[in-house]
Parts: sequence; structure tokens; C-alpha cells
Amino acid sequence: MLPAIALAQINPTVGDIRGNRQLCRACLDKADDRAEIVVFPEGVLPGYPAQDLLLERGFLRDLDENLKELAAGVDHRWVIVGTVRRGSSDGGRRQLFNTAAVLHDGKIVAYRDKTLLPTYDVFDEARYFTPADSIEPITFTLASGERLRVGLQICEDLWDTGYDIKVSNRLGEQGIDLFINISASPFRSGSFAERRDLIRAQVKQWGKPFVYCNLVGGQDELVFDGRSMVVSGEGALVRTGAAFQEELIVAVPEGKPEAGAETALRREVELAAAIKLGLRDYFVKTGHARAVVGLSGGIDSSVVATLAAQALGPQQVTGIAMPTTYSSSHSLEDAETLAKALGIHFKVLPIENLRTALLEALAPFFTGTEPGVAEENLQARIRGNLLMAVANKQGALLLTTGNKTELALGYATLYGDMCGALAPIGDLSKTEVYAVARHLNMEAGRSLIPRRVLAKTPSAELKPDQVDPFDYELVSPLVDELVINRAGRAELLAQGYEEELIRRIRGLTVTSEYKRRQAAPVIRVTGKAFGVGRRYPIVNRYEPIGKR
Amino acid sequence: MLPAIALAQINPTVGDIRGNRQLCRACLDKADDRAEIVVFPEGVLPGYPAQDLLLERGFLRDLDENLKELAAGVDHRWVIVGTVRRGSSDGGRRQLFNTAAVLHDGKIVAYRDKTLLPTYDVFDEARYFTPADSIEPITFTLASGERLRVGLQICEDLWDTGYDIKVSNRLGEQGIDLFINISASPFRSGSFAERRDLIRAQVKQWGKPFVYCNLVGGQDELVFDGRSMVVSGEGALVRTGAAFQEELIVAVPEGKPEAGAETALRREVELAAAIKLGLRDYFVKTGHARAVVGLSGGIDSSVVATLAAQALGPQQVTGIAMPTTYSSSHSLEDAETLAKALGIHFKVLPIENLRTALLEALAPFFTGTEPGVAEENLQARIRGNLLMAVANKQGALLLTTGNKTELALGYATLYGDMCGALAPIGDLSKTEVYAVARHLNMEAGRSLIPRRVLAKTPSAELKPDQVDPFDYELVSPLVDELVINRAGRAELLAQGYEEELIRRIRGLTVTSEYKRRQAAPVIRVTGKAFGVGRRYPIVNRYEPIGKR
Repeated sequence: MLPAIALAQINPTVGDIRGNRQLCRACLDKADDRAEIVVFPEGVLPGYPAQDLLLERGFLRDLDENLKELAAGVDHRWVIVGTVRRGSSDGGRRQLFNTAAVLHDGKIVAYRDKTLLPTYDVFDEARYFTPADSIEPITFTLASGERLRVGLQICEDLWDTGYDIKVSNRLGEQGIDLFINISASPFRSGSFAERRDLIRAQVKQWGKPFVYCNLVGGQDELVFDGRSMVVSGEGALVRTGAAFQEELIVAVPEGKPEAGAETALRREVELAAAIKLGLRDYFVKTGHARAVVGLSGGIDSSVVATLAAQALGPQQVTGIAMPTTYSSSHSLEDAETLAKALGIHFKVLPIENLRTALLEALAPFFTGTEPGVAEENLQARIRGNLLMAVANKQGALLLTTGNKTELALGYATLYGDMCGALAPIGDLSKTEVYAVARHLNMEAGRSLIPRRVLAKTPSAELKPDQVDPFDYELVSPLVDELVINRAGRAELLAQGYEEELIRRIRGLTVTSEYKRRQAAPVIRVTGKAFGVGRRYPIVNRYEPIGKR
Repeated sequence: MLPAIALAQINPTVGDIRGNRQLCRACLDKADDRAEIVVFPEGVLPGYPAQDLLLERGFLRDLDENLKELAAGVDHRWVIVGTVRRGSSDGGRRQLFNTAAVLHDGKIVAYRDKTLLPTYDVFDEARYFTPADSIEPITFTLASGERLRVGLQICEDLWDTGYDIKVSNRLGEQGIDLFINISASPFRSGSFAERRDLIRAQVKQWGKPFVYCNLVGGQDELVFDGRSMVVSGEGALVRTGAAFQEELIVAVPEGKPEAGAETALRREVELAAAIKLGLRDYFVKTGHARAVVGLSGGIDSSVVATLAAQALGPQQVTGIAMPTTYSSSHSLEDAETLAKALGIHFKVLPIENLRTALLEALAPFFTGTEPGVAEENLQARIRGNLLMAVANKQGALLLTTGNKTELALGYATLYGDMCGALAPIGDLSKTEVYAVARHLNMEAGRSLIPRRVLAKTPSAELKPDQVDPFDYELVSPLVDELVINRAGRAELLAQGYEEELIRRIRGLTVTSEYKRRQAAPVIRVTGKAFGVGRRYPIVNRYEPIGKR
């Protein structure tokens, strides 16, 4: 008979080794004693990803010490903890392993190292780690005297499609009673179903139960969504951990499917929940409570303000409108209506006279020139300066309101509307921003975001009668094809996009790389976000389309 | 007898595959016909590093086509070209090789792939490439009928200390007449001597000549310094390529040492030359000619303006002083003196009334509060806005003037003095900035940078009687120990630093990560620069020192 297993789906903080150990300790105290195996996620002790902290000797020493201290308090249970260990130094070579430490009866009794090291997109594991030397199951002797052979693996070890080594097979072939996978698998839209299907495929092949424990919480750009899984040897999803929340799950990996466990969340529900967690954790973990948002009366800032109000509490959020002569009357009204509906602080800071004063100061350079992008950017940067001043004064963080489509096209002012500590909707296309807005209103049962905001034509309002020079219904999916799917010219033509549009939009995406290099961290919610997972050169003369 | 070999130490542009092919073609036309082997650097066809362009199928297709086209024009010579090739798709797995293509008689006759893939610091090669399947010399049949066995390797293959596989040994053991290494080895202070010593060690072991062809030019943060080498089988440095310049070298790898070839450049000479090349190429390759620099009358902006004037030409540079009431009279004088000495454009834009206007606009938030960092930042951001406005108006790029010590400590205003397309001295410590300043004056044979600027106490002049709150003579080397050498608490205490100072400076370095994430690209000139080669989390609660 299989034992009960506790899955500690918890939210550690990168670098806070001692705090993370205490978090683990608290789970051990709280976990039902029937659970003879307690599983923590990948990298729970250092936090994940700890990045270049792993290159500091002192950090690795502190990890060792804290793991020993955690082990010292472990009773008869078998405790699996994600951490990083130093291997024997091999000819002067630094050897680090991303590992699952097994603690039992006061001691560290074994390690099982990660074999497959993701080095693509946001992952840099080959920068730090050496792959496991060997792949072997581990045997736990239970209180009953029964021996349980466990195929213990770490995150990517399950995602073996692109690799020569098939870790699950190597474990399965050696005869096991159970798979356990500890993960720090970041959220992206649709990832839950992917993980579930990968697990099911292994269960189907080996007829053994599968326990999957995933991290939860935000870390810089990344959001870990939890949703740990316990799957029976018959493929039934017996338990699913909470989405985007900590949970201590205790389950026996057998029996019938849990009601509702299969239900994937709707896309915009997931996106909103992920952003709120990423936003909240960025504030909490950097020691901030208050946020400032510039409210233009447009869809993007309305959605950011709403998400911030829900993630941080409306009293922690200050919305600021900064009209000029180019601002339409509805902009100010809509910003105010939104702020009232959300219950956030709201102030109007007119900037028209500042604009004039700056233009005067610039007379030595501007006199006699045609107004253009310099004048437009000036306004955006006055707003950036005011918003940062308020944030600095309040000890708050400014949120930037750009979406992914704008970031892709460079339709944003560097040091202007791009100012901010974090870009909550920087990985949502314009289309997705609208979908999330509608979801937020629906969920609230009332119009948080005014209807007019959802209906009106997007405009930066930086010059008279300006509207955004893009048909977003056409351009937003095209940008996604270029950025997420890396679609080439032929594929895009086949999808019906016009050559001239492809060339223009691709060109904008390439030439705006310099702006993105200085953009705020974007909370990643899709398979390909701007930021650490997309590494393009600024100097880039590649032109695939058209004339040679 | 060994043949003459041409080393084409050239400066390609990332992404400009066709342009790079034409550059190679021009070298083939120009190279002395006696040279039966022509060697191009690593990655010369795509440009290096091409980063995520390598994930675009169209880009790889274009590489293939252009390589074929280049090969079609190759005569009896053996031409070695650095490029990227697709391997046979193995079970759906993407396989790319960083490779040396060998062209001869109109055809691509062989490839030799890179074995050791650097994945540390600024290098991400495991993100893109698969290591070579095998390590084998290649045989060139010369016009004389003589057969030459060449140990062809790529860059890191020479730097095998940290790796299990020793590529040079594997080649040497199979019997060769000559080593050829094609490199894209970025400059860092002292790298020339390191490379020379590595090459000498192989020559000493195998008694065979070594030909080393390195890339030259700037690419985003990186600067490639050229300085290719031809070393005889007796270890004589027969030829060294130009430093920081293109050169087509033709040499027979035997004979006596070249006069002066051994002489490494003085540190500050190297640093200045590297920055000028990085700066110039960033402008040229992004299609810009003009630069804007804010001149404070301090050492940092003076050095940046001087480097820019020398790299771009003084007529392309505009220096702007923006005094407030807190600016001392010598600041403005020194800025003007500098501009005159350099022959750059110079304007004064007073910002005092803008500061007042912004403070008034912020009254709803600022009234009744103590002046602090919010007020100081305000001024820096007004300056940022004006400088960007001028740059936008002129189609110029703004240069940011922060040094590495300031960047480390976060002693800079985000969206203020941190505004700019490029940070020329962002990898120079405060101490090195002074050294480079003295060198620039000495080289010019007159005071470009006024003596008073070299002598006065650094100050941001953002509030009355402010001076920088750091003793740079103490703090500048401490920051280098922390950032470059990752020195821990014990090592620093042993070096005589006080515990409290270590804690304070390390703390500032950790908590200012969010600013650096949005900083301009820094031209890298040391072993560890801020930017792509240093990846720290923003959310980072690690505190190694002191109380537990």
C-alpha cells in the first residue's frame, strides 16, 4: 500500500536561505504525521532562480549549513528538499548540481541530481550546473518496514522530448513504485495542461503513480503557479494543488479523480491571477507596499491600476492623471471614474505649463525646427518625472503600463511612459489586455474599468488628434506570430499578412530593441516574453524580407 | 616548408550576412596570392554573437545560402570561415554548431565544429550550440602538392582549463603540422597576454606553429580587439595583428620574433582604445553619427566627452551644461573649458526655473514634506529629459556618463543621469576613470580635461554643499573586489576592510540591482562588467555578513 505524501507547495524568497529553511521547518511541523514522505519544490532553499548568487562561495557554504540544520530536525519521515550542492572539484573545475537532497532521521542521507539542464528561453542552467553523473531510484523504508522504490527527478527531467537522455525511462526501467518530480516550473499560459499530459504519458508507460510538487510565487519576471499534482498509477488526477497560492497537500497517490481537478482555468483568468501574484510578490519581496500608476484614461493604465488595486489593496495605490492640451476631456473623466470604482487614491497634476517651460528652455535647440517626436517624448518624460517624484516621495514603486504589442513596436517613450519598477502587462498583447479587462469587470460583477475605455480608439494623446498608428486587431496577432512563434516571411504571407505590413512591423520590432534593453522587468505569462528569455542584439542589421 | 597564411582580422556586423560575405570577398581579392590559406574569425558570417537570431530558421537559411555563394567564388586557396551550421535534426532536436567552414575550389569541402562552448559571464553558447561530435585535423593539399595537416579549432577550444576535453591535445595527438584557431574573443584588460600564453603553452607542448585569427569591432556591450597572432613552432611571436583595428595580415608562421610584438599595451591605453572602438561601432552600426553629453564639470562627463570627441569627431559631439542654484561656479567654467579644448559644440541650458515649476506642480504631494531624494532625483531627471530632447531633435544618441563604482553603489538617478543609449565608462572604476583622464591628457600633449577637474572633490551637486558620500580611494577598489572577484566577507576582512564598510557597500550593490536592470548597455573592458555577463536577481534577500 502506498503511503500518504505531503507536497509543500510553498513560496520561498531568492537568497533568503534562513527564511526558506524556516518555511520548510514550519511545513514539517504542520504536515499530517501520516505523511511519511514530505516533498518540497526544486530550489526551495536558495530560491529559484538564484542566478549568479550561485557563483558566490559564501552563498554555497550558507546553503550547506542550512541544509544540515534542517536535516538535524527531521524525524522518521523522508523529506525531499530542492537545493544546490557542490560536487568534488574536478581538476580545478567548479561543479555544481541542481539537486534533491533527501533528509531522514536527522541526516542528509542522499542526493539525486538533475540530469536535464534547461538552457533556453528564460533558463540558464548550463551556466551554473553540471548534469547528474548517474540516474538511480532511491529506496525509502517506511515505518511499516515496507520498502518503497522512488524514481526521484527534477523539473526538466520530465520534459525530455528535446534530449537524448530519457530520465523517466531510465528510472522506470530500473523498477520503481512511484515517480516524484520536484519542480520550479514557471507559469505560462497553458502550462498546466502540458505538465499534466507529460505526467500522464509516464504513468501510462510505467503504470506507476506520479507525484509532482511545484513552486509557487513571483521572482522578478517569473511567476510560479503551483498546481502540484498527484496522479494514480491508473492515470487518475487524485489531487491538484491550488493555483497561484501556497498549499500543503497531503494525499495518497491512488483512488479516484478529484472532482474538478482536470479543469484548466480560462486563459484570461490565468493571466490575471499570474500577474497579480507576480506583482504582489515583487512588492512584498523587495519590501514595498505602495504603488503609483499614471492614469491616461486608456485601456492599459486602467487594467494595470485594477490589477494593482486587487493585488496590493486599493488603499496602497495612487492613480495620477496628467493632462495637457492634447488630452481629450473623456480621458480625465474616465481616469477618475476608474479610480472611484477601484477605491484607489487619485490626483490630477496638469502638466501644460511644464511642457511650455521645457519647450522654452529648449529654445536654443528647438527654435525654427518642425515639431516631431522630440516634442512628443518631452511630454511623456515630464509625466515620467512627476510619477517617479511621487513614487520616491511616498517610498512607492511606479508601475509602467505598456503592453507587449507596444513594447514590440517600440511605441512607447523611453524614460517617459516606460518609467517604472515593473511592467505588469508587458507580456499581454493589446488583444489580451482587452480580454483581461473584460474578465476583471465580469469577475467584479460591475464596471471597474469604464465601458467607454473598452470602446474608444487607443491614442497616446501626445499631439493634436493623434490615434495609435496601428490597427491592433491586425497588428497584435502579427506581433505575437513574430515574437512568440518566430514566424518567418513565408509563413506570415501564407497566413494572409501583406508583405509591406510584415516588413514594417518586423522592422519596428528589430529597431526598438534598444528601448526594451532599458525597459522595466516584464511579468512573464506567455511562452515568449520580452526580457531575460529573449536575447536579441541591439546592433542587428538582419533583414530577411524583400530585396537582397 | 610552411605556406604563407592570410589572417583577415575584420569587423563584420551582426545580422548583416550579405555585407559580411562581401567583406570576406573583398579580403579574398586583396589577399596576397602567395597566401594559400586564408583565415577569417569565428562567426564572421552571422556576426558574433548573433544571439537569438540563431533561433530564426530564415536566418540560418540565409547563412547557408551566403556561405555557398562565398564558396562559389573561392579559387585554389583554402579559406576558413566562421559561421553557424545546422546539423541533422536528431529526434526533433534542434542542432546547431558553431563551426569553421572550409572552402576550396568553389565548394564547401568540410566543417570543423567547436567543441567547448563557453556558457558563463557574457557567453551563452550552450543556449544555441551542440558541441562537436568529433575532433579531427583537416588536410589541405597545397599547390606544390604538399599536404598540410591542420589542427583547426574555434576560440574556447584553446581555453580548455575548466573542461574535461582538451581539444588542442586531441588534435596534437593525431599528428598535425600547424594549429589554426579562429576566435571572437572579446577584449578585457589583460586578455592579450593571456591568449599569448595559452598559445605558447600549446606550441611548447607540440612544437608546432600556431595561427590565431581574432575578430575586431564593437557589438553592443562587447569589444573585440583583434591582435591576431602568428607563432612559430619555436614559440616566436612572428606577427601580431593591429589592436582595435582591422588588418589583413599575411605571414609565414616561422622565423624570428617581430620587433615590439610582445609589448602589451599599458592598461589605461588599452581601456581608452577599447572604449573608443566600442563607442564608434555602436554609432556606425546603428546608423548614428552625432552624440550628446551632459557636462557637469566633473571627471566622468569630461572623460566621456573626450572619448566621444575622439571616436566620432568633435563636430559630431554636443556638450550641454545644465546648472541649478546648487551648481558651483567652477562646474560651468570647467565644462566650457573642456568643450573648447575638445572643439565640440557647447550650450548652457539653465534648469533652475524648471526645477521650481516641477516642485510647484508636485505641491499636492510634496507640500509639508522634508526635502530628500525625491527632490534630488527631480533635477537629475529634468536634465535627462532635456538631454534626450536634444538628442531626439538632432537624431543623435545621448551618452550616459556613469562609472562602474557609481553603478555598483546605485549612486545615480534612474531616468536621470542614467539616461542614454550607451555607457562608455560604465565598466571603469572611479580610480580607472582618473587614470584614463590622465592618459588622454598626456596623449594629447595638453590639458583636454582641465586640471581642476582632475583635482576637485566629486559631487553630484543635487543639494547644497553636497559631496559624494564615498571615499573613492577606499570604495572604488572594494567595489572591484566585490563585483569582479566576488570576494567574500572573510577575504575582504583579511584585506583590511572594515566589517561595517563591507556590509554597507555590499548592501548598496545588492539593493541597486533594479537600477542596473534598466541601465544603458555598458562597454565591457574588464573581466566582469555590469550587464549581460552579470546576472543577479532583483529580488535578492541574501545577506552573507553579520547577524544570523
